[in-house]
Amino acid sequence: MEHVTPSLESEFDRATGSTLIDDGTYAGEIEDGWDINGNANGGYLLALAVRAMRGASGRPDPISVSAHFLAPGKPGPVTIETSMVKAGRQLATMTGSMRSGEREILRVLGAFGDVGAMSGGFSSVVGSPPDLPPVDECVVRDQQSGIVNIGLMRHVRVHIRPEHAGFADGVKSGRALIEGWFEFGDGRPIDTLALMLVIDAFPPPVFNIDIPVGWVPTVELTAHVRGIPAPGPLRCRFHTEFVQNGFLQEDSEVWDSSGMLVAQSRQLALLPKG
Amino acid sequence: MEHVTPSLESEFDRATGSTLIDDGTYAGEIEDGWDINGNANGGYLLALAVRAMRGASGRPDPISVSAHFLAPGKPGPVTIETSMVKAGRQLATMTGSMRSGEREILRVLGAFGDVGAMSGGFSSVVGSPPDLPPVDECVVRDQQSGIVNIGLMRHVRVHIRPEHAGFADGVKSGRALIEGWFEFGDGRPIDTLALMLVIDAFPPPVFNIDIPVGWVPTVELTAHVRGIPAPGPLRCRFHTEFVQNGFLQEDSEVWDSSGMLVAQSRQLALLPKG
Repeated sequence: MEHVTPSLESEFDRATGSTLIDDGTYAGEIEDGWDINGNANGGYLLALAVRAMRGASGRPDPISVSAHFLAPGKPGPVTIETSMVKAGRQLATMTGSMRSGEREILRVLGAFGDVGAMSGGFSSVVGSPPDLPPVDECVVRDQQSGIVNIGLMRHVRVHIRPEHAGFADGVKSGRALIEGWFEFGDGRPIDTLALMLVIDAFPPPVFNIDIPVGWVPTVELTAHVRGIPAPGPLRCRFHTEFVQNGFLQEDSEVWDSSGMLVAQSRQLALLPKG
Repeated sequence: MEHVTPSLESEFDRATGSTLIDDGTYAGEIEDGWDINGNANGGYLLALAVRAMRGASGRPDPISVSAHFLAPGKPGPVTIETSMVKAGRQLATMTGSMRSGEREILRVLGAFGDVGAMSGGFSSVVGSPPDLPPVDECVVRDQQSGIVNIGLMRHVRVHIRPEHAGFADGVKSGRALIEGWFEFGDGRPIDTLALMLVIDAFPPPVFNIDIPVGWVPTVELTAHVRGIPAPGPLRCRFHTEFVQNGFLQEDSEVWDSSGMLVAQSRQLALLPKG
C-alpha cells in the first residue's frame, strides 16, 4: 500500500490520492479544477486510477496501462476497485475500475513493475526529442480557449512551439502535430505516475487541421512508461496520422531533460459527426 | 451469440471457434499448428479470445482491443470468460479472460462496434501503404527458421520484401523494419477478426538490427481496427523505434488492396537479458 507524505504533498498528489477502504478497493475524489469545461481530463482520471492500482500492485511504476473511457468524470467522490490478475516476477498485471456511484467512468488493464530495476541493457533508438525553443519563447496553453475553460491548465504548464500554437487564434498549421514542454505549475517533480497526466495534457493535434469538430472524446488510451524522468520539464510530441471512418488515432512521445524517451502513448478517439 | 456456418469453415474459423457453455463463458481449443516452437502465436490467441468476446458483445467488429499475455498458450482446451463492461450505443466494452485449466493465459479489454456503420465522414491520412514488389517477387516466411519451427506459417502466407528478409540468413538490414504481404493459405477472406492474427504474424522487425536475443515475448498488445478490408492480400508494415531499459515497442500498420488503412497495432515486448 502507498502512503503519501503530507508535508511534501503537491497539487497532483493531493488530487490523485486515495484511501484503501476494503480489500482492493480505494476511495478517492475527482477534484474540481482538473477539467475541460467541467469534465475531468482523461489523463487526470487515469492518474487517479493508476495511483490506486500501483498501490495495490506493490510495484513502484506503471509499465503498460490501457484505459477505456466510459463516462465523463465529474467532481466528487469515486471508488477505485482493483484486482490482481497475475503477480509475476517482473510484472504485476492488474485491473482497475473507477466508479462514481453506480456509474463506471473508467476501466483499466495494466502491468506494473520497477522501471529503475530494468534500466540499461541493449538500446536502439530511432528518433529524437523535439528541438524546441526555450520555454519562454513558447506559447502557454491558455486556461480559456474561446468558450472552452481548461481548468487543467491551473495545475500544469504546457508551453507550445509557436508554429504549432496558432490554431487557438484560428491559424492552423495544416499538419496534425503539436510539440511543446510540460511541467507542473507548483514545480512537482515528474515521476512515472505523473506521465499518465502528461500524455493527455496537450490540445488534440487535429486542431491544427481542418477537422470539422471541436472535441474528440477518447475511447481508449494506452500508455507505455519507458524510463524514469530526469529532473526538469519534458519535451513532448503529439501527432495524428489517421483520421477516417469516424475515429482518429493520437500518439505521443515524451522525452526527459537527458534526452531519454520516458513515455509513449496512443489513443483512439471518436470523431463526432460534425 | 455467433454461429459459424460449417460449410464455409476455413482453417482460421475452425481454429478460433468456441461454444457458449455458460453465461458469458465459452469453451474453445488452442489448436495445434498455430505456434512458434510449440507456443501458440499471440495473434492467434488474441483472435480466439476476441471471437468469443465479439459473440458476447452482439457487435460485428472489434474496434480497440488490448491484451496482456500472461502465460504461453499450449494446444488443448481453454475457456474464455467474457463480461460486459458497458453496452453503449456505438460501442460495447468487454473484458475477456482465457484460461487453460486454472492458468490464465490472456486478459483482454476491448471495445466492439460496427466498423461498416462508422464508414465515411471526414478523412485525413498521412502516410501510405508500402510500395511492395508483387507477391511472387517477395520472400515467403519459412515454417522453419534455424532451429525455430513456425507452425503458424502452415496456415498463413507472409511474403516479405526481399531487402527486409535477409535476417533469416544472417544478413540484417540494420533497420528494425519489415514490410510484406499477408494472406491466408486457404484463401479465406480477411475480415476484421482476422486482423487480430495479421498484426502478429510477421517476424519481429528487431531481427533486422543487432539485437542480442532471439525472442521478444509480448507483454501487451493493442490493436485498432480502422476499416473493413477489401478483398485481396494485405500490405503490412512492422517497425520498432524504441529498444531500451529492457523493453521494446513494435508497431504495425495494415492496408487493404484499395489502399485504406484497416488496422494499427502497438505492442510492448520484453527484451530478455541476452
